[in-house]
Amino acid sequence: MVIIGEKINATRKAVQAAIATGDAATIAELAWRQAEAGANYIDINAGTFVDNEAEKLTWLAQTVQQQEPLPLCIDSPNPLALAEALSANVNADVMINSITAEKGRWEAVLPLVVKYRAKVIALTMDDGDMPETIEERLAIAERLVTGLTEAGVPQDHIFIDPLVRPIATGTHYAQVVIGTMQAVKARWPKIHLACGLSNISFGLPARKLLNQAFFTTAMQAGLDGAILDPLDERLMATLYATKALLDQDEYCMSYITRFREGKLNG
Amino acid sequence: MVIIGEKINATRKAVQAAIATGDAATIAELAWRQAEAGANYIDINAGTFVDNEAEKLTWLAQTVQQQEPLPLCIDSPNPLALAEALSANVNADVMINSITAEKGRWEAVLPLVVKYRAKVIALTMDDGDMPETIEERLAIAERLVTGLTEAGVPQDHIFIDPLVRPIATGTHYAQVVIGTMQAVKARWPKIHLACGLSNISFGLPARKLLNQAFFTTAMQAGLDGAILDPLDERLMATLYATKALLDQDEYCMSYITRFREGKLNG
Repeated sequence: MVIIGEKINATRKAVQAAIATGDAATIAELAWRQAEAGANYIDINAGTFVDNEAEKLTWLAQTVQQQEPLPLCIDSPNPLALAEALSANVNADVMINSITAEKGRWEAVLPLVVKYRAKVIALTMDDGDMPETIEERLAIAERLVTGLTEAGVPQDHIFIDPLVRPIATGTHYAQVVIGTMQAVKARWPKIHLACGLSNISFGLPARKLLNQAFFTTAMQAGLDGAILDPLDERLMATLYATKALLDQDEYCMSYITRFREGKLNG
Repeated sequence: MVIIGEKINATRKAVQAAIATGDAATIAELAWRQAEAGANYIDINAGTFVDNEAEKLTWLAQTVQQQEPLPLCIDSPNPLALAEALSANVNADVMINSITAEKGRWEAVLPLVVKYRAKVIALTMDDGDMPETIEERLAIAERLVTGLTEAGVPQDHIFIDPLVRPIATGTHYAQVVIGTMQAVKARWPKIHLACGLSNISFGLPARKLLNQAFFTTAMQAGLDGAILDPLDERLMATLYATKALLDQDEYCMSYITRFREGKLNG
């Protein structure tokens, strides 16, 4: 499981404030704590800075990597902001979040994926309406995979994100995502699947409970990348329990080790 | 989801003592609390009373049904004990736990299933070695389903139990069970799947965490009957969250209602 730590996101008030005031210590600590907790990539997002996103995103990249060159997941729909932040990145292992099949975004982001040999999260959306069915999402995934691999991106650099929509807006949406994941894994076994977990529960109470159950069921469907809060011990405990159930944890040793470290009580 | 409340089991010390001393109040309260918490059937098991199991199981049946004729799940490998307890049962809706493809047990239990038009849990085991693979379990399920339906048992009275074995004794066992469930559902969409949840985590720490994740992943695979502790609020919260994710909860109303009742905090 590739864990992408989601906490350095300007939609969070404390992060917004830290970016606005140039409080590098807060950002660096958030990065370091997520890496310590198991994050493989540190997502950075400055999307609320509409007028100077590129500058702020670049500052985040520099700040996160100041002490140690942690792998970044550079998160923006804005190709110019992605390009500037990528040029400041110092770790060869980097992820772009995200490309889509929208014509403008595709044409602007693809060269960055190629130039930096980046991992890339590819969202199953295009210029049409938001895809509703598994078939529509799979058709967009097909175009994304074909286009990326034709451009030389290795299959195992691609993380298809099947677009998690809140079950509060349609109770079928979790099963649409699960079905899309199963279909993508069946079609391209080497391609990864990633998504944010928390959108599934938007608008409902006791969201963590839903997020945990969704994480388990998505992992069973093949999810092997997740944008999540690695400081949420209960969610991470769910991850380790599910890995044991999926036969991804030899002798359940990671599970037992985490228990001994007191991390399965959340 | 058909919930079979597991608490009235003589392997639990308090239950063993209540049976030994004829403490009807303790048993009745355990039954009532489980029914209140959502149990559709009250499992009764007096298996530790080797010399007089039939008498004790019959007493349990009478005691559970004294105030109100709650549906029983009569739990014994002993056909004589099943027969006596069944003759004391007063609710037309009754479940037998369990039949297997073992020759002696099959021949003795099948007539009881037919006579009482009972629901029945059918374990995928026979007189051979414990089945290891999905294919072996499916082959036994085939014989069970064929035999039961030829005897006139409706498909929707049959709950196939694919034998949950602890992942501590083989890390592949959860996936063997999940795979068997998927295969049974694909083969016979109307046939139910049931199992106990807690055996999966035997021998490991933080068992509830594994049981919850296993419950979610088994539900995704088609599990629609579970032998569990309905007084475990966290497990029941997992059930309601997973039902919402499986699109089995219109407008997520059961989930929201349970939250309002303060039952999703476990």
